[in-house]
Amino acid sequence: MLKDELTALLDEDDSAAPESRIVRLLSERGAASAAEISRLSGLARSTISTALGELRRAGVVVEATHGDAARGVGRPASAFALNPKAGTCLGVHLSLAHVGVMVADVSHSVICEKTFALGLDYSPEAAVSAVRRAMRDIYTEQGLSLRALIGVGISFSGPVAPDGRIQRASIIPTWAGVNIRETFEPALQRPIFADNESNCSAVAEMTWGAAVGVEDFVFFTVDVGVGGAIVSRGRVLTGIAGGGGEFGHMTIDPEGELCRCGNRGCLELTASFAPALGVASRLLGRPIGLDDLIALALDGHVGCKRLVEDTATLAGRGLGMVGSVLNPGLILIGGRAALAGDLLLEPLARSYDRHTLIKRADTPEAQRTRIEFGRFTANNALMGAVALVLRRQGRLG
Amino acid sequence: MLKDELTALLDEDDSAAPESRIVRLLSERGAASAAEISRLSGLARSTISTALGELRRAGVVVEATHGDAARGVGRPASAFALNPKAGTCLGVHLSLAHVGVMVADVSHSVICEKTFALGLDYSPEAAVSAVRRAMRDIYTEQGLSLRALIGVGISFSGPVAPDGRIQRASIIPTWAGVNIRETFEPALQRPIFADNESNCSAVAEMTWGAAVGVEDFVFFTVDVGVGGAIVSRGRVLTGIAGGGGEFGHMTIDPEGELCRCGNRGCLELTASFAPALGVASRLLGRPIGLDDLIALALDGHVGCKRLVEDTATLAGRGLGMVGSVLNPGLILIGGRAALAGDLLLEPLARSYDRHTLIKRADTPEAQRTRIEFGRFTANNALMGAVALVLRRQGRLG
Repeated sequence: MLKDELTALLDEDDSAAPESRIVRLLSERGAASAAEISRLSGLARSTISTALGELRRAGVVVEATHGDAARGVGRPASAFALNPKAGTCLGVHLSLAHVGVMVADVSHSVICEKTFALGLDYSPEAAVSAVRRAMRDIYTEQGLSLRALIGVGISFSGPVAPDGRIQRASIIPTWAGVNIRETFEPALQRPIFADNESNCSAVAEMTWGAAVGVEDFVFFTVDVGVGGAIVSRGRVLTGIAGGGGEFGHMTIDPEGELCRCGNRGCLELTASFAPALGVASRLLGRPIGLDDLIALALDGHVGCKRLVEDTATLAGRGLGMVGSVLNPGLILIGGRAALAGDLLLEPLARSYDRHTLIKRADTPEAQRTRIEFGRFTANNALMGAVALVLRRQGRLG
Repeated sequence: MLKDELTALLDEDDSAAPESRIVRLLSERGAASAAEISRLSGLARSTISTALGELRRAGVVVEATHGDAARGVGRPASAFALNPKAGTCLGVHLSLAHVGVMVADVSHSVICEKTFALGLDYSPEAAVSAVRRAMRDIYTEQGLSLRALIGVGISFSGPVAPDGRIQRASIIPTWAGVNIRETFEPALQRPIFADNESNCSAVAEMTWGAAVGVEDFVFFTVDVGVGGAIVSRGRVLTGIAGGGGEFGHMTIDPEGELCRCGNRGCLELTASFAPALGVASRLLGRPIGLDDLIALALDGHVGCKRLVEDTATLAGRGLGMVGSVLNPGLILIGGRAALAGDLLLEPLARSYDRHTLIKRADTPEAQRTRIEFGRFTANNALMGAVALVLRRQGRLG
């Protein structure tokens, strides 16, 4: 079966045959021309040509409409992608009270996406049966075969240990200690890939967003919480227990307020938008959400502008510490903070530079840390859950 | 020439022939049996046997006395190492007022080591001519050919950018902006490898110390300063401008005292032993160095004990932040702090656990962060400078 051939090629060792390297590359990148495959893999053009011939005869790879060709610049180069019939991926995002699912094929086409409300403190059982039902509905509606499903990627709003166990510090306290693999694998009967939402969002940026082709970057989200991810040589550094990239829980003030994680004075208590939203709501006498706050600030409301700037300055200080630890070449700012544009980015970057060791002014352009917005402000964790499967990252068990 | 054959094999691409992979592995590990080579490289035993045959005929690899064989357990397995005649490495450590040099061969035998005083604020020219003189003296005394020198590794007490430029935040202010490669390469006529001293010390631990066989760890030094290194998949994460692992310069208090780096309230201002030594010197009415302080503390002096414990607690808080960023599986504590043993390690580990996100008590043994001492308390940066050449890390230009 085509799917078995595909997954065998996807899961071979690093030192594998050219066929396997090409299949993995196409799974990560979507479509690519032979020239791009050569540049990215280091394989000789003749080797690639032979291997692509084999893969096309086997039906694993097909000719694709190439992104660049669409621009109509010069004669379009042939591009290749994995055969969409060879496999599909299911992405799942488990958030505070909602579950999102997305189905995409291995040529990177999104087939369907749905979100449904499960209510606060929903149980693992409720999530599993909702996901299973949605999966069956989607595959039936779309006329897809479940046999071609190559894996399920799960994004969770909290640290996920390498064995799938959810750490105590998640935003859904009732899921602490639950094992994602043990919960979903028996019901879905497919390989399970999982990671926390910030790590998934970083994988989405790497696969389709602002970090395509970037092997090393830091992802830093500022929203009603602060989170992040570290990508090194194309892989997320998840840490020994899934706690890598938890920038929001750096202890800024050991005598500070209690955080939901059980520590005091965590960065996200002051540098997320949560306190600003409280102040704005009191100030304006009605509940103000993050989208409202940013819209008001962009509209020139002086109080809301100041709240955005001050949050950016506090977040930049925390990010400056991350800078002294990692000195990354690129920092992508994720979360809805991106909606504020330069109103947020400028004070954040200024504060970063003030509080980090390596200063912009001392450093030639090529060695400066670029701070930019990520591409996605919505759905990024769900897209990242699909990308986990395509990139074979975060596999459990 | 044997040396040219060796360096060609050392510097081939990742996807290289078995010969090259074996040579790189032996250069990193010293001696290894065929079984170990197979386990570490993933190559088949038959492939290794053929390649080793070739390499031994060419004289690049020789049979070696194996570490395990010396223990006399069972029949000793044949072990292999690079032929010491095929190449030598020069390591150089540039510190505040001294320069150390070490010569070792590619079988990992140290041939000679020397340190000489150059005085405070010594110039790059003085360092170059001292190193060149020492190198020539050692090679003449030992009857070695300079032609077999395969590279020069340089450890510097401050961040080194990937192009060799020394950042402003070093402990030798007169060297800010100096380019290490441009300074040393014309005089020594060999490939130059360089990194800051903490990164070099981490490479020494990885090559000969407490991190042999460990691919991912954090190195954290507590001495009269605080420094460190991050190792991921066997490579130091140096950062885009050489500022990776600069844990001592995380801003703990933005309104705190001015640090030599130009920022305020850096971790090393409170969490290094520098302030404790000031207090101890006033208390005892004589200059107290770190060795004295630790000796007094271990001898039961209550004031000195408390100073060690308090420094450990402050350092552990900073390290807890690094833990929330990286959640490493292993943290090696480097620097002379190791001389204090459990008097330092216990409060440091307690403080780490208190201020980091993932708690020891919530985590199964295999996912806990182990905090241990490194193996070396002296000469580690100089050894690491040699190891840079053996591991082909930090190459400039």
